[in-house]
Amino acid sequence: VILLTPGPLTTARETRAAMTSDWGSRDAAFIALTADLRRCLLALAHGEANHVCVPIQGSGTYVVEAAIGSLVKPDSKLLVLENGRYGARAVTIAQRLGRPVTSLHWPEATPVNPQAVRAALKADPTISHVLLIHCETTTGILNPLQVVADTVAAEGRALIVDAMSSFGALPVDLRTTPITALLASSNKCLEGPPGIAFAIAARDALEEAGIAASVSLDLKAQWQGFEKNGQWRFTPPVQAVAGTVKALELLEAEGGPAARLARYRDNFATLLAGMKRLGFSLYLDEADQAPIIATFHVPKAWDLTFEAFYDALAARGYLIYPGKLTGADTFRIGCIGAIGRRDFEGLLAAMAEILEKARG
Amino acid sequence: VILLTPGPLTTARETRAAMTSDWGSRDAAFIALTADLRRCLLALAHGEANHVCVPIQGSGTYVVEAAIGSLVKPDSKLLVLENGRYGARAVTIAQRLGRPVTSLHWPEATPVNPQAVRAALKADPTISHVLLIHCETTTGILNPLQVVADTVAAEGRALIVDAMSSFGALPVDLRTTPITALLASSNKCLEGPPGIAFAIAARDALEEAGIAASVSLDLKAQWQGFEKNGQWRFTPPVQAVAGTVKALELLEAEGGPAARLARYRDNFATLLAGMKRLGFSLYLDEADQAPIIATFHVPKAWDLTFEAFYDALAARGYLIYPGKLTGADTFRIGCIGAIGRRDFEGLLAAMAEILEKARG
Repeated sequence: VILLTPGPLTTARETRAAMTSDWGSRDAAFIALTADLRRCLLALAHGEANHVCVPIQGSGTYVVEAAIGSLVKPDSKLLVLENGRYGARAVTIAQRLGRPVTSLHWPEATPVNPQAVRAALKADPTISHVLLIHCETTTGILNPLQVVADTVAAEGRALIVDAMSSFGALPVDLRTTPITALLASSNKCLEGPPGIAFAIAARDALEEAGIAASVSLDLKAQWQGFEKNGQWRFTPPVQAVAGTVKALELLEAEGGPAARLARYRDNFATLLAGMKRLGFSLYLDEADQAPIIATFHVPKAWDLTFEAFYDALAARGYLIYPGKLTGADTFRIGCIGAIGRRDFEGLLAAMAEILEKARG
Repeated sequence: VILLTPGPLTTARETRAAMTSDWGSRDAAFIALTADLRRCLLALAHGEANHVCVPIQGSGTYVVEAAIGSLVKPDSKLLVLENGRYGARAVTIAQRLGRPVTSLHWPEATPVNPQAVRAALKADPTISHVLLIHCETTTGILNPLQVVADTVAAEGRALIVDAMSSFGALPVDLRTTPITALLASSNKCLEGPPGIAFAIAARDALEEAGIAASVSLDLKAQWQGFEKNGQWRFTPPVQAVAGTVKALELLEAEGGPAARLARYRDNFATLLAGMKRLGFSLYLDEADQAPIIATFHVPKAWDLTFEAFYDALAARGYLIYPGKLTGADTFRIGCIGAIGRRDFEGLLAAMAEILEKARG
């Protein structure tokens, strides 16, 4: 089966094979594996000088909650830059944790505007942290990370970046992009199995962190645990760690994030050209679309329901993804995972056949 | 490698093999797998009449935090019955979440005393929930679940049971043992991979739950998500789910919890007899010891450090576990996992050889 989703996604055979061993989670071999994981992830972000990698058990949302609950203090304020579901969820998390929160809101097809961020920061000096979603999985829109990061830094505030859908493919360099905490998970562009999320967090921000909102989702305590003895505080998903370390080796062997991005761009270009031929149109302006997950309009004259289309593709081994938009009838196709142009050609051929049949 | 730990532990080859597929987490096949998981776990506890199974991503501690933060309201009070580290951690979690908490405390080698629980409940009518650790992994002590459950029910309070180390082997029957929420994880007596924890919770308790302390660790919202469309709210560890479902099939094939308990009892008996021959003594009274994880005193006249002993056993393929006691020099050996008498005979032979060599 080929997964054309925002994750969990198609992993390499070698990655899955790496998940077939048992590990003692407090044994030296697993401590070394955890150190590899943390070192490789930190290096991918070029964060060795001032940052540390803090993996946590769970999904991406868990590390977003851990970052907000650990870094934003109850007497400071978070500004969320919101143009999709994941921004909205970050607002909900901050509210639930009792952290003061405000947000700037854009329509789902509009990237975050750095000028508005600057104005909001100038207008409210109590904002201590800003949260940006790098690539909003809701639509696949790419937000302007570098300009937002420079703006937030110029105003003397801390930036938290949800890079869930982008990390491992879209470039991020902590030497030149000021970010306090970069958040991502094992099962997107890293092409690992799901089960691990992580923060690449500034060491000084962790040192200055107050009491976290949670024991389980406490970034500072988790970091201190790793520093103390190299171990996870609580039982880690050992097979997911082993699979992710293997996936990171494969990323390096492929040529790193630049090579991976080139493959994803090729996937997206193949997909977009074919979808246009089949009569589908892209929801976003092409300039705002990251080559991660693409949102397509359901055609006006549509011979199928989405469910029938999904099922027919699933029967042929291709799993696509429903839309998540509030105001438009859409579906999504992921371009990430251990898949390439031939998989998209196969997908497009299957679609053509299904559409033909529906018309006939 | 043979893991003689409290988990993650040695899993069956078939369980690990079940982890080598990719799954679309919102696809019908995975929805069916999740339904299998929830149904089998609920059936193991005989909870079909009034309970539901709510799995969450993460380690056992996550579901303890989810249960406290979801079920205990900020204006009610939790009583923790504490005779080890995991009880102490539950107190810390409640404090962190701003839930009023009190505790009764026993020495690590002493089981919880139900009379004291009754007196505490009579003395403080503001206590709404009681939390008991069924088998405290700190020592391996077995606490008197049935009597405590009857006592708590007689006083009209709700019982939360951390059955992390016991569920799947030691009997628990929700038809005859009144428990509001039974908590456990995939990677102990169920012999699955780590990555999933779960609550088997009374439906009415979830319905009456207030606003949880966390978005990620919200039992009620997680349950409502499963009820709505059969899906996990956030990305699930798909391979761990598949591995756990396979592990549950193997549990049934073995003959269910009774057969598994018989194997663990045989493991423990083999271990204890051999350890006595080698000059080690059990930390607990044998009557209080669950056949899950056994704590042994480090002998007074000991020719080795624990580290040297551990390393020598690890070099022979056996991973044991350090002690976690405050007042005694001990180490632990797990009796659970996909292992049997022959593995323990091998372990004991390796120990004899190492001790012989150290003496020589």
